[in-house]
Amino acid sequence: MNMPSYTAAALAERFGLGVHGDGSVAVESVGTLAAAGASQLAFLANPKYRGQLADSGAGVVVMREADAEGFAGTALIAADPYAAFARIAALFEPRPERPPGVHPSAAIDATAEVAADAHIGAFVSIGARSRVEAGAVVGPGCVIGEDCVVGAGSELIARVTLVTRVRLGHRVRIHPGAVLGADGFGLAMDNGHWLNVPQLGGVVIGDDCEIGANTTIDRGAIEDTVLGEDVRLDNQIQIGHNVTIGAHTAMAGCSAVAGSAKIGRYCLIGGAAGVLGHLEVCDRVVITAMSLVTSSIREPGEYSSGTPLMDNRSWRRNAARFKQLDALARRVPRAEP
Amino acid sequence: MNMPSYTAAALAERFGLGVHGDGSVAVESVGTLAAAGASQLAFLANPKYRGQLADSGAGVVVMREADAEGFAGTALIAADPYAAFARIAALFEPRPERPPGVHPSAAIDATAEVAADAHIGAFVSIGARSRVEAGAVVGPGCVIGEDCVVGAGSELIARVTLVTRVRLGHRVRIHPGAVLGADGFGLAMDNGHWLNVPQLGGVVIGDDCEIGANTTIDRGAIEDTVLGEDVRLDNQIQIGHNVTIGAHTAMAGCSAVAGSAKIGRYCLIGGAAGVLGHLEVCDRVVITAMSLVTSSIREPGEYSSGTPLMDNRSWRRNAARFKQLDALARRVPRAEP
Amino acid sequence: MNMPSYTAAALAERFGLGVHGDGSVAVESVGTLAAAGASQLAFLANPKYRGQLADSGAGVVVMREADAEGFAGTALIAADPYAAFARIAALFEPRPERPPGVHPSAAIDATAEVAADAHIGAFVSIGARSRVEAGAVVGPGCVIGEDCVVGAGSELIARVTLVTRVRLGHRVRIHPGAVLGADGFGLAMDNGHWLNVPQLGGVVIGDDCEIGANTTIDRGAIEDTVLGEDVRLDNQIQIGHNVTIGAHTAMAGCSAVAGSAKIGRYCLIGGAAGVLGHLEVCDRVVITAMSLVTSSIREPGEYSSGTPLMDNRSWRRNAARFKQLDALARRVPRAEP
Repeated sequence: MNMPSYTAAALAERFGLGVHGDGSVAVESVGTLAAAGASQLAFLANPKYRGQLADSGAGVVVMREADAEGFAGTALIAADPYAAFARIAALFEPRPERPPGVHPSAAIDATAEVAADAHIGAFVSIGARSRVEAGAVVGPGCVIGEDCVVGAGSELIARVTLVTRVRLGHRVRIHPGAVLGADGFGLAMDNGHWLNVPQLGGVVIGDDCEIGANTTIDRGAIEDTVLGEDVRLDNQIQIGHNVTIGAHTAMAGCSAVAGSAKIGRYCLIGGAAGVLGHLEVCDRVVITAMSLVTSSIREPGEYSSGTPLMDNRSWRRNAARFKQLDALARRVPRAEP
Repeated sequence: MNMPSYTAAALAERFGLGVHGDGSVAVESVGTLAAAGASQLAFLANPKYRGQLADSGAGVVVMREADAEGFAGTALIAADPYAAFARIAALFEPRPERPPGVHPSAAIDATAEVAADAHIGAFVSIGARSRVEAGAVVGPGCVIGEDCVVGAGSELIARVTLVTRVRLGHRVRIHPGAVLGADGFGLAMDNGHWLNVPQLGGVVIGDDCEIGANTTIDRGAIEDTVLGEDVRLDNQIQIGHNVTIGAHTAMAGCSAVAGSAKIGRYCLIGGAAGVLGHLEVCDRVVITAMSLVTSSIREPGEYSSGTPLMDNRSWRRNAARFKQLDALARRVPRAEP
Repeated sequence: MNMPSYTAAALAERFGLGVHGDGSVAVESVGTLAAAGASQLAFLANPKYRGQLADSGAGVVVMREADAEGFAGTALIAADPYAAFARIAALFEPRPERPPGVHPSAAIDATAEVAADAHIGAFVSIGARSRVEAGAVVGPGCVIGEDCVVGAGSELIARVTLVTRVRLGHRVRIHPGAVLGADGFGLAMDNGHWLNVPQLGGVVIGDDCEIGANTTIDRGAIEDTVLGEDVRLDNQIQIGHNVTIGAHTAMAGCSAVAGSAKIGRYCLIGGAAGVLGHLEVCDRVVITAMSLVTSSIREPGEYSSGTPLMDNRSWRRNAARFKQLDALARRVPRAEP
């Protein structure tokens, strides 16, 4: 691996940023404001960390113009320092080589199609009538079942499963252990036994989506489970059958959406939060961590449930009172005495 | 794939249903009441959707007798339309071919037994003394360790792991990423370090169980972890060591049962709900989503914990008061003034 | 498999225990106090089970000295019977053979290093510049990416993924489906689209750690995600990027720690509990199941959130009052009437 190196001025030119101080400083990697050294670039976005700036050893710091006043070092000036940092950091990201071609161990059905410039790793199996498009990467140990599409430029990092009827758009990234297109959980009780309801739909994933490690997205019962473009799912998320998630929505780890719920665009779902089945959540809704959505949300805004953390002894006392809350409330005077 | 086609009359005959209207209508697939076309069959089970019936383009609709009165189209009459639909829909389910035989890439221990009509997919490994019975399917990428049994007619869709001492009954289905038989989480603190308690038991899964994607079921410490027949587990569920789950119980996604708990028969455990270790939950208990069972349940019925979702500002105000609840309660007059 | 057999006296000698009664009794396996037979060894640690002692058919029982008074059978006397049992039980644990050597199907990059006495199973892939040290076991279906280290004596049971820049210490055990080193969930909103923030760090796992099935540990954004020595993670846990977890901390199934949080040493995190990002939790903190840590914890102790389980009808009444809690509190008299 060659070490890349860029001057501050070259980075400013490349990403349309301003330069404050000495543009000839060379950047060879990135670091945190607290720990970066003379050949490293750091960033200051959150005002909370402004105090670290004076002591930072970073050769270059990306920051807002206002923060650069009086800064003695080299700064790159950006309206959004975090986004600018993200773009610059990508220059220093070591990327594994995924050359075009099919690993000799791969088991590919005769009816599947693989683009000439796609990469198919070791121990990959691809089922009947599936298609891997131009420039796509299917990492080691992935299983692609029947009637799937891996869109152009998409990347299945490793050990991803697309069960059946999963169609990925362009530039979709899926992390290891994710399972898309497994049977939705559709059951009918029939004379004391469960009867499976066939899950005939598929999964459709929009362009530029990202799906985290060990996340599961079930296929639809009759119609499809659908993610709009640029939806971002963290790890260990569960998406039930026939869910739809609007474009640009991001969900944090361990959250879950039950069957047939519809989530809007630009929503932020916190970690381990849940949405019950068949509900609708409108655009631009924020759900805080571990909250449970039990009825549809029609207004944008931030929503929460749960109780605050307490020392266990206090919690026991207060939680016991929760069981009496209705009775207590009936005894509270209507107006302040 | 040939497109199957059945007349309404043929479906009625096959599944013991009544016919209302023209029995000669041909059904080539299934759809939703709202979206189905002339060659499709839909169903009406939930009265909430009765309003969609008049406008439905479905060629045939499965419904209760009472709903068919005055219906101008073709109906199939069933006491339980959803179950009847499930059976009919299965006729239209595309099923991947899993012909008998062992994929040449499979790595099978010399002491393992595989039935002649079982299907073993690509990149499957099977350990010492394990047995795959008649008609079973072991999809691509599965790992079966030592001393396991895959019962007759069972199906491991893909990338399932049976670690060791896992015995599946007949017709068990397991979805990708599930891990059965990993070490239970048994630890003893010993002079400031954790000591592993050997997990010598196994996992026993009853006939007709279904295990969702990325669900984990640990093996027992001394005795076995046991699921009765027809237990249905959704995705991302965690079952601790030595748990027993009674027949016909269904658990929704992301729920969890801690070690040595006993869950009864015909229970319904909601999404992300939890049951603490060593508790007993009797038959026919319903736990709503994200509730936590902290003591044994001796009476059938529906149980819940948690607080309702609110806009974040209201939630903060109310949640802060939860910390004062015991103190508040002490100040509430004993009887209404 | 030969059946091992040890006399009580031999076990006492080996593990430094006292003998009460007949030391010549032979032990061939272990069992529970309730179910063990004459050739089995059981243990009594929890006083709650003392009542089972008189009726136990166990040939030998490990117990505290005080419990052995008046016990007619053979006892092994230990200060900590559970830890002593754990050590004895390990003698009876069937362990799969994992002989040194590389399975012919494995796909190992030319620049990777594998110790001569390491075991590499079927369908394993190992990427560029990765190293598997002495005595390590990499079970079937594992994927090891670029620049990883599997430390001496470590064991990846099966189907584990180390994505990139993951360094395991010595004697680390990882269960199937775990994914270490996937991209942290780092996003910047940029003109209405999400922009990925490159995740340039790695994951460092201390000696003697254990990582459960389907657990995920993301790699750091700039610096590393770090687990100290002897950290024990159960199944289905999510550890965000740049988290640090102190030595000897144990986390139960389905718990989660969001990005950049710091957890202390000797903490116990209950099942499905969560810690929000950027918080600090000091040493020796216990978090009960399904609690959410929303601010830093500076004092050792036990902490909880949530409400108690109730029958659903009572819960609905009380939960509805939670929405009025602040208003109610304002109407409660300041002092008791």
